[in-house]
Amino acid sequence: MQFEIERIVRMALQEDIGLGDVTSMAIIPRDTTMRAELVAKDDFVVAGLDVAASVFWLLDVDVRFEKIFVDGQKVKRGDVLAWLKGSALMLLQGERVALNLLQRMSGIASLTAQFVAAVEGTGSFVVDTRKTAPGLRALDKYAVRAGGGRNHRIGLFDGVLIKENHIAAAGGISEAIFSARNRLPHTLKIEVETRDLDEVQQALDAGADIIMLDNMTNEAMAQAVTLIDGRALAEASGGVTLERVREIAETGVNIISVGALTHSVVAADISMLFK
Amino acid sequence: MQFEIERIVRMALQEDIGLGDVTSMAIIPRDTTMRAELVAKDDFVVAGLDVAASVFWLLDVDVRFEKIFVDGQKVKRGDVLAWLKGSALMLLQGERVALNLLQRMSGIASLTAQFVAAVEGTGSFVVDTRKTAPGLRALDKYAVRAGGGRNHRIGLFDGVLIKENHIAAAGGISEAIFSARNRLPHTLKIEVETRDLDEVQQALDAGADIIMLDNMTNEAMAQAVTLIDGRALAEASGGVTLERVREIAETGVNIISVGALTHSVVAADISMLFK
Amino acid sequence: MQFEIERIVRMALQEDIGLGDVTSMAIIPRDTTMRAELVAKDDFVVAGLDVAASVFWLLDVDVRFEKIFVDGQKVKRGDVLAWLKGSALMLLQGERVALNLLQRMSGIASLTAQFVAAVEGTGSFVVDTRKTAPGLRALDKYAVRAGGGRNHRIGLFDGVLIKENHIAAAGGISEAIFSARNRLPHTLKIEVETRDLDEVQQALDAGADIIMLDNMTNEAMAQAVTLIDGRALAEASGGVTLERVREIAETGVNIISVGALTHSVVAADISMLFK
Amino acid sequence: MQFEIERIVRMALQEDIGLGDVTSMAIIPRDTTMRAELVAKDDFVVAGLDVAASVFWLLDVDVRFEKIFVDGQKVKRGDVLAWLKGSALMLLQGERVALNLLQRMSGIASLTAQFVAAVEGTGSFVVDTRKTAPGLRALDKYAVRAGGGRNHRIGLFDGVLIKENHIAAAGGISEAIFSARNRLPHTLKIEVETRDLDEVQQALDAGADIIMLDNMTNEAMAQAVTLIDGRALAEASGGVTLERVREIAETGVNIISVGALTHSVVAADISMLFK
Amino acid sequence: MQFEIERIVRMALQEDIGLGDVTSMAIIPRDTTMRAELVAKDDFVVAGLDVAASVFWLLDVDVRFEKIFVDGQKVKRGDVLAWLKGSALMLLQGERVALNLLQRMSGIASLTAQFVAAVEGTGSFVVDTRKTAPGLRALDKYAVRAGGGRNHRIGLFDGVLIKENHIAAAGGISEAIFSARNRLPHTLKIEVETRDLDEVQQALDAGADIIMLDNMTNEAMAQAVTLIDGRALAEASGGVTLERVREIAETGVNIISVGALTHSVVAADISMLFK
Amino acid sequence: MQFEIERIVRMALQEDIGLGDVTSMAIIPRDTTMRAELVAKDDFVVAGLDVAASVFWLLDVDVRFEKIFVDGQKVKRGDVLAWLKGSALMLLQGERVALNLLQRMSGIASLTAQFVAAVEGTGSFVVDTRKTAPGLRALDKYAVRAGGGRNHRIGLFDGVLIKENHIAAAGGISEAIFSARNRLPHTLKIEVETRDLDEVQQALDAGADIIMLDNMTNEAMAQAVTLIDGRALAEASGGVTLERVREIAETGVNIISVGALTHSVVAADISMLFK
Repeated sequence: MQFEIERIVRMALQEDIGLGDVTSMAIIPRDTTMRAELVAKDDFVVAGLDVAASVFWLLDVDVRFEKIFVDGQKVKRGDVLAWLKGSALMLLQGERVALNLLQRMSGIASLTAQFVAAVEGTGSFVVDTRKTAPGLRALDKYAVRAGGGRNHRIGLFDGVLIKENHIAAAGGISEAIFSARNRLPHTLKIEVETRDLDEVQQALDAGADIIMLDNMTNEAMAQAVTLIDGRALAEASGGVTLERVREIAETGVNIISVGALTHSVVAADISMLFK
Repeated sequence: MQFEIERIVRMALQEDIGLGDVTSMAIIPRDTTMRAELVAKDDFVVAGLDVAASVFWLLDVDVRFEKIFVDGQKVKRGDVLAWLKGSALMLLQGERVALNLLQRMSGIASLTAQFVAAVEGTGSFVVDTRKTAPGLRALDKYAVRAGGGRNHRIGLFDGVLIKENHIAAAGGISEAIFSARNRLPHTLKIEVETRDLDEVQQALDAGADIIMLDNMTNEAMAQAVTLIDGRALAEASGGVTLERVREIAETGVNIISVGALTHSVVAADISMLFK
Repeated sequence: MQFEIERIVRMALQEDIGLGDVTSMAIIPRDTTMRAELVAKDDFVVAGLDVAASVFWLLDVDVRFEKIFVDGQKVKRGDVLAWLKGSALMLLQGERVALNLLQRMSGIASLTAQFVAAVEGTGSFVVDTRKTAPGLRALDKYAVRAGGGRNHRIGLFDGVLIKENHIAAAGGISEAIFSARNRLPHTLKIEVETRDLDEVQQALDAGADIIMLDNMTNEAMAQAVTLIDGRALAEASGGVTLERVREIAETGVNIISVGALTHSVVAADISMLFK
Repeated sequence: MQFEIERIVRMALQEDIGLGDVTSMAIIPRDTTMRAELVAKDDFVVAGLDVAASVFWLLDVDVRFEKIFVDGQKVKRGDVLAWLKGSALMLLQGERVALNLLQRMSGIASLTAQFVAAVEGTGSFVVDTRKTAPGLRALDKYAVRAGGGRNHRIGLFDGVLIKENHIAAAGGISEAIFSARNRLPHTLKIEVETRDLDEVQQALDAGADIIMLDNMTNEAMAQAVTLIDGRALAEASGGVTLERVREIAETGVNIISVGALTHSVVAADISMLFK
Repeated sequence: MQFEIERIVRMALQEDIGLGDVTSMAIIPRDTTMRAELVAKDDFVVAGLDVAASVFWLLDVDVRFEKIFVDGQKVKRGDVLAWLKGSALMLLQGERVALNLLQRMSGIASLTAQFVAAVEGTGSFVVDTRKTAPGLRALDKYAVRAGGGRNHRIGLFDGVLIKENHIAAAGGISEAIFSARNRLPHTLKIEVETRDLDEVQQALDAGADIIMLDNMTNEAMAQAVTLIDGRALAEASGGVTLERVREIAETGVNIISVGALTHSVVAADISMLFK
Repeated sequence: MQFEIERIVRMALQEDIGLGDVTSMAIIPRDTTMRAELVAKDDFVVAGLDVAASVFWLLDVDVRFEKIFVDGQKVKRGDVLAWLKGSALMLLQGERVALNLLQRMSGIASLTAQFVAAVEGTGSFVVDTRKTAPGLRALDKYAVRAGGGRNHRIGLFDGVLIKENHIAAAGGISEAIFSARNRLPHTLKIEVETRDLDEVQQALDAGADIIMLDNMTNEAMAQAVTLIDGRALAEASGGVTLERVREIAETGVNIISVGALTHSVVAADISMLFK
C-alpha cells in the first residue's frame, strides 16, 4: 500500500502547491525552522497519522514527525496527535494537504467506530462499500479498518457480486452463479444480491457463498437468516443508519454493509498549531 | 479543465475496475446492450453530469449519454437526470464511478446553494476554501460554482494569503505585505489574515487588498467593515454555519469563506436504474 | 482490461520505436500504403489477435485490421490469422511489437491447451500462477483462458494463500486461518499450502476453503482428496509436467496449477507477410 | 539504465501487489524480520541479481541484500546466489517479482552462454534480436550480455536495417541505401537484408556496412563471406539453433543473430528459502 | 517547485541517456571516479546551479556537488562555478543535461539583468511573459527572478488578462471586466489590454486593476500614465528592446513586460572540465 | 515520433492552462466560434506547422486547422501560414502554446537554412548537436532537418563518441576504440574526438569510423582531411559561426556540427490573428 499512499500524497501536494506556495516563498526565509503540533479540536477516533507523516517526508526528508497517538485510538479535544519540526517553508506547504487527509480519514474512522459500537456483542461485522471518494479508496478503506470495521471487496476486480442486471442477462440466479463458478478464479467467493425470500432460496440452491439481503425489512432479514441457516453468509445492505443498525444486527445477519461510512464523511476537527 | 477531468475519471476507473469487472465479464455476454437512467432519489442541485458522461465516454466512445438537466439546476425526487444506452458491460463498469462523482459534486452544489440562498440580497459572496478531497479539487471547486458560490484561490500557487506564521517570520504585518508586494507577480492581490481590529488597521495601513477576519464575532466584523470602509475587501472566515451565515453577511463583509462546503460533503442520493 | 492493454501496447511501442523507425522514415514515402497478412508458420492455438489489432490502432486509427480467426481457435501452418491494410510506415513500425505480443500469447494458449487436453474428462481444472512476465500478467492470464485454462488469483491483492512462512509467523495453521478470517474481506476464500496429510487435516479442521497440496506424490494427493472429501477444494501444485498431469488429475484434485504455462513460454511461429 | 530498471521493477511490484499482500497483512506482524536465501535449484548462468536487489530496495530501503555471485557467473544446483534480511512483510511481498525477473534473466543468460560456447574460437559473435518480452527489452538485452553475447540494435531508433519492404518501396537496394545514407545520422551503420548472392553483390556495390544473410544455407553463406571479403560485416540470421550454430560460424560470418535467445526463454530454477 | 525541477531533470536525463551512455558504458570502468569543474567561459549572471546539482543527485546520490557561486551572482570568464566529484560514468552521463539547463538559465538571467540595469532608478519593474520554452516555464521564470526581474502570471490559470478577443466577445471593455469580476476568484487582479487612450479610459472607468499599454508609442504611454494617475498599474508591452527600455521606463509605467527574456535566449558559455 | 509530439504538446498545454484559462472561461461564451490565422511577421523558414495543428487537435478534435505552407518552406512577412476555425475558448487556450512551439522551431529551421546555404556546393553537411532545450530535443532536431540540416546522434544511447575522458580512462585512443568495438552493437559507427594531427593519426590507425576535429584551425582541419584521405568521415566541431562556416567547409571536412542551431534560438516572429 506504500506506493498507493505515495501516489495519493504526491497528487495532493502537486494539486495544492503547483509551482510553489507563493506567499511563503516571498515572505519566509529559507532557513527558518518551526515546530508545530497537530491538535484535536474535538473527540474522535484518529486515522491517517502515517499518511500525514508521509506528506512531510515527501516534501522534505529532514522534517521530523513524531506520532503521539496511533491510528485507531480515541483522542479527546486538546490532545496533541503528533508534533513536527523542520523547515518553516515545508511545514507551511504541507499543512493543508496533511490536514485534509487526516481529517477525512479520522472522520471515516470515527463514524465507523460508532457503527461498530452499536452492533457490539451481536456477532455482526460492519463493512464498507465502493462508495468512496474517487482516487482515495485505499485510504478510505484503511480508515474503516482503523475504526474497527472491515472491508468489502476493494473494487470490481477482487470480488464477485451478482446483481439484478447480471441475473437478468444470465436468465436467472442459478445460471448467473453457474457462469461465475465456471469462469472465475476459484479463490473468490460468489455473492448474490437478493430482494426477497424467494431469491434467497434460489441463491442458496445455486450454491451462493454470500447472500446480500438488499433493502429488506428487519423481519424479512430475520426470515432470510433462518432460511440460510449458516449455509452461506448473510449480508444486510441498503439504508443502514446508526439508529437502525443494532436492530439489523439482531436479525442475525453476518455482515452489514454501510455506504455512509465513506460517502458522506464529516471531517474530524484538527488544527496544526505552530509554536 | 478537460485534461484534469480526464485524469480524475481515468484514475477513478482504474481504481475501481483494475484488470476487470470479474462478475460482469463472467456473466454478461459482450454484445448485450442496455439502457439506463440516472434518477434523483431526493431534491437537490445537480452537478457533475458532464463528468459522469465522460466516465462512459472514456470507457467506450459508443455509449450514448444524454443529459436532461444541466449542472446547477434544481432537481426533484424522481427526476431523470440523464439516460444512457450502450454495451451492458460498459454501463455496469462505469456505474459506481459515475455515481460516486455525481453524488459528491451534487452534494457540494446543494450545500453551496443553501448558503448562497441564506445570504441572498446582502451583497456578500459565498466562497470555498482549500479544504477539498485530495485529488478532486478541480471538481469540488466546479461544484461550488454550480451551486452559485464562487472560488477562493485554487491552491498555494495562485493567490496570496498572509497568515500568522508569515507575519511572525516577517516581523510584522507591514513587513510581510512589503515582501509580498516586492516579490510576487503584480497580477495577484494580497490578502492578510487578521484576528482583531488592531491587525485590521495594520493591514489597511500596509495596503492589503483583502483582509480576512478570522474567527471574529459578528460585532468585531461589523466594526472591521466600518474601519475598512471599502479600501480593501473584507472576508469572513472560520466557524461559518448555515445558521450563522446570514448574520455574518449582514455585518457587511464582502466575502464569506466556508470550509464545510467541501470538507464535510453529504452525497446526494442518485441511482442508476437499468431499463 | 482495455486500459491495461493500452498501457502495455503503448509501453511496447515506445520501447521499440523511441523517436522513430529511422530506416523506414528515411526510405519509405509517407503516402505509401501496404497490405500485410499475419500468417501461422506452425500449428497452434492463437491468442492475442485483438491485442495485435490495438498495436496498429494506437499507431494509426486509419490502419484497417481484419481478424480471420478469433482467440482460442486452433490454427494450422499456413493459415492467415488476420490481414491489415494502411500506411506502410505504420505497418512496418508496428510489425515487431504486434508479433512479439501475438507470438508470446499464442505460445501460452497452445501450451495451456495441451495441459487442458491431457486432463480432459477428469473434472480437474488447469490454472495458472503468478509466474508471469513482469508487466504482462494481464495478457499472460488472458492467454491461459484463451487456451482453455482458468486463472488462479491475479496478484497478492485478490486472493489469500497462506504459506509456510505465514503459518510459522502465526504459530500454526489454525491461528493463521483465524487471523485471515477475521481481518480479510469476507468475499475472499482462504487457501492454505500443505505438505502432508497432517497439515491437510489441520487446514480442514480450521475451515480452509482451498487446500493446496504442495509437491506431494500422486499417492499422497489421492489420500488427501479422500480426506478432504469435498469439504474444501483440493489444488495440486509443484512440478506439474505434461507427462504427469493426467495422473495428477486422476487423483481427484479439483485444481492443478502449472507455473510452466507462463514462465517458460515458447513463442508460436508467426510471420507478417507484406503483399 | 537505472531509470529503466526502476520503471520495470515498480511496474512489476504494482502489478503483483496492487493495494497490498492481503494474506501477509492479515497474518504477519509488522515487526517480524526474516532472513532468506536465493538458491539455485539447477546449474545455470546467473543474471539479474542487481535487479532482484532493487526489487527489495524499492519496497523497503532497510532490507539488506547481499550478493554472493555476480551476473554472468556459472552457478551450480544448491548454490546460494544471495541472501536477504529484513521485514518479513517486505520479503514476502517482493519474493515473486524478484524471482520472476531473476529466473527469466538467468534463463536468457544461460541459453546465450550455450550459443557462445558453441561458436568458441570461430571469431563469430552471437547477438540478440528485437524479439524480446514487451516492456522488458532492457533486461533481456542485458541478460544476453551477461551470458557472453552481444546486442544488435536496441530498437528501430538506433540502428538501420533495410529489409525487403524498404527495398521494394525505394525501387532497389542501391536506391534504398542511397536514401538512408543521405537522410540518417552519419553515426549509424547501414545494414541490408539479402536473400541470395545477387543481392549480396548489390548491397556491396551500394556500400552497405553490414550485410544480413537471411535464411541462407551454410553453403550460400560461405560464398557470401567470400564475396564480401571483409568489405562489410556479414551477419547470419534466421533459423539459428544450438545444433546448427557452429556450422554457421564456420562459414566465416562475423555476426550470428539468434531470436530464440529472448523469444522462447526457459526460466532458470531458483527458489527463495526462508530461514 | 522541487517536484517540478525533479520532473524536468528526469525528463531531460531520459531524453539524453535513454537506455544508457553506450560509449561510457563500453569504455569507462564502473569504479572510476573523477573530479570536474563547471567553468564560465564568458562574463554573465549565473542561474541554475541548484538545478545542475539535482541532475547529478538524481543520477547518483553519491556524487558530491559543491557550489562556489549562487544563482543571481555575476561571474567572470574563468570563474569556477561549482565542482563535482563522483563516479566518472555518472559525471559523463549528466554533463550535457546539466550544461543545457545551466546555460539556458544563465542566458536568461544575464539578459534580464541587462534590462533591469537599463531601467535602474526609474521605478519600473521588468517582468517576463508566457513566451517560454514549452515544459521549462518554471525554470525560465526562476531565471528571470535570478536576473533581478519579476514574473508576470505563470499561466492562463493564475492571472487575468483581458485581450481584444475577450472584449469583442463580451461586447466591450466594461462588460468584459464586469464578467471577470463576477466570476473569478476575488484574489486575482484584473488586467486589460488597451491600444489607445480611449481604451485606457474605458478600462479605468470599469475599474481595471492593471492596464496593459500594448504596442503604444512612448508618447502615448506617457499620456496614459498621466491619465491613469495611480488608479491602476500601467504595464508597457510589445516591442521592448534593450535600446528602448529606458525610454519606456521614463514614461512612468509601473511594469515593462519583455518577451525576449525567454523566447530568444542566448546560452551562456559554460564548460565542464574534468581534472 | 507521434507519441513524442503528443507528450510535448500535452506537457506544454498543462503547463500553460493548468485548471483553466480563467479569463476566457469567465468572459467567452462556450458556444462562440472564431476563425484565426497564423501570420508571418518576418521572412523565415517555417517549421512546426503539424505540431501547432496537434496543439488544437489535442484540445478539441473539432477545431479545423488548415496548413497553407509546409515545414521547410520559406515564407515572407505577411504570409498566412495556416488558418483555424473552431471554439473561441479552445483557440484562445491553444494560442500561446502553438506559437511558442512554432516560433522556436521556425527559428531553428531558419538559422539552419542559413548555415546550409553558406556551405552550398562544398559537399559538407551541417549537423546539429545535443545542445537542445531539455525535453524538446525531438522537435529541435526535426526543425534542423526542416531547415535542410542533418542530425548527429539523438542522445547518448544511439551513437558512439569517444572523448578525451574516455581516452584517458581507457589508456589511449586505440584502447578506447578497441573496447567500444568489442562491446557495442555492431550497428553503430565509432567516432573519436581529436585535438591535433597526432591524435587524428592514432584514431585512423585504430580504425575509427568518424574523426571529430575539435576546435582546430582551418589549416589543421585541411591537413587532417588530407591525412584521413577518405578512410573515415571528418567532422568539424567547435566555434562554428555563420561567418566562418564556409571556410571550414572548404577544408574538405564531411560534416560540420553546429551547437548554435539549437542552443541559442531566436524565435521567428509569428502572430495569431483572430478574424
